[in-house]
Amino acid sequence: MKVSAAILIIGNEILSGRTKDTNTSTIAIWLNSIGVKVSEVRVIPDDEKTIVDTLNLLRKTNNYVFTSGGIGPTHDDITAESVSKAFGLRYEIHKEGYKILESYYKPGEFNEGRQKMIWMPQNADLILNPTSGAPGFSVENVFCLPGVPSILKSMLGGLTNKIVGGEPILSHTINLRTVESEIAKSLTQVQNNNQDVEIGSYPFFRAGKLGVSIVVRSTDKAKIDTCNNEILKFVAEQKIQIVKEV
Amino acid sequence: MKVSAAILIIGNEILSGRTKDTNTSTIAIWLNSIGVKVSEVRVIPDDEKTIVDTLNLLRKTNNYVFTSGGIGPTHDDITAESVSKAFGLRYEIHKEGYKILESYYKPGEFNEGRQKMIWMPQNADLILNPTSGAPGFSVENVFCLPGVPSILKSMLGGLTNKIVGGEPILSHTINLRTVESEIAKSLTQVQNNNQDVEIGSYPFFRAGKLGVSIVVRSTDKAKIDTCNNEILKFVAEQKIQIVKEV
Repeated sequence: MKVSAAILIIGNEILSGRTKDTNTSTIAIWLNSIGVKVSEVRVIPDDEKTIVDTLNLLRKTNNYVFTSGGIGPTHDDITAESVSKAFGLRYEIHKEGYKILESYYKPGEFNEGRQKMIWMPQNADLILNPTSGAPGFSVENVFCLPGVPSILKSMLGGLTNKIVGGEPILSHTINLRTVESEIAKSLTQVQNNNQDVEIGSYPFFRAGKLGVSIVVRSTDKAKIDTCNNEILKFVAEQKIQIVKEV
Repeated sequence: MKVSAAILIIGNEILSGRTKDTNTSTIAIWLNSIGVKVSEVRVIPDDEKTIVDTLNLLRKTNNYVFTSGGIGPTHDDITAESVSKAFGLRYEIHKEGYKILESYYKPGEFNEGRQKMIWMPQNADLILNPTSGAPGFSVENVFCLPGVPSILKSMLGGLTNKIVGGEPILSHTINLRTVESEIAKSLTQVQNNNQDVEIGSYPFFRAGKLGVSIVVRSTDKAKIDTCNNEILKFVAEQKIQIVKEV
């Protein structure tokens, strides 16, 4: 069974280049570990129509959609209202969420700005936030997470039992002291011999030295081992040095 | 005049989470400086049909498209062939590119793997590479750059005169020692007073302290100044500390 997810990063700060997105990597590594493959990532602006249209496309073409960003207390946080519109649901105060934040903050501190954070699509499921109180939420196959990387990361663990994945996607890396052009032909042969395994080749530069990381990915450990052996064979024949640490 | 661009990141290594994309930020900051706004970013796998379909959509809905990744010598580098198919052009050896790499490498080193890097869409324009020889290329409004961040960055300068942008997009940041919920109401008022200015609010955590960066963006310096003054006014009224360094 192949299970796919799309990641939707919502935020002008990524499109302007001000902020580098690291949430894609965090979400993807976690999804791979529970057998879900990321099919595509889109970064879109804080614009309601764009969010609604993109979400309504991605949630139909993927088993899951994970959004990041736009669920805070300020005027540019429009994800929850946009998700409500995408699903045709009322945008309203989430009673359970309200209780959580009411007890999280000191008396008098649960102000209007903070209350905005528990306006959600009607009957949304909460995604608990062990770091800073304000929960995320899910509606059907769409899971809405915050943009702040450390908070997002802390919320994924609580989601694992809500996602039905396939077999975990395994990965094996071989780092070589060579350049891509020297191994391109041999590696093409390995890929042709093992067409259902994903083999990637990535040059690296560290401490003034060039190298290539070969990454082999599959849900089948035996297939990874077969590729690994074929790669090690041409590496030995071509007298290429294997690098332990990159 | 509004000029838009889409960024298309091609590579399984981003979708698997192995590599964090930094090229979006590099390209976006450069584009903003020459008056081009990034409308969306997509990350897609090394899959020909996906590349062809996505490119044929984005090149029609944006003034420019910038791709990153997939132009190296190995089997998983399929961007040039896919772009050829997207435009219905022959995929062939680029004569000028061939000459450049022939003189870049030492005699005997311009091997089959390296020659793959100058197979391009017919009559493509070269994008020179001051770092590692192998050029990128452009066809009509599509500019194809490598995935390695340092090489990509070094190639942008040579592109500036090929892009016709609008007015540069200016940005002003005010860092405050507060939390978003304390300023949400005042900031909404500033946004309502200045609807054609983009105002973003981004929480930060540094050295154990919370803060909020307010980012004001516009092509019009006077409009940024107006927003800045309105923000400084409520900041003073609410006795919020301004932080110089974040």
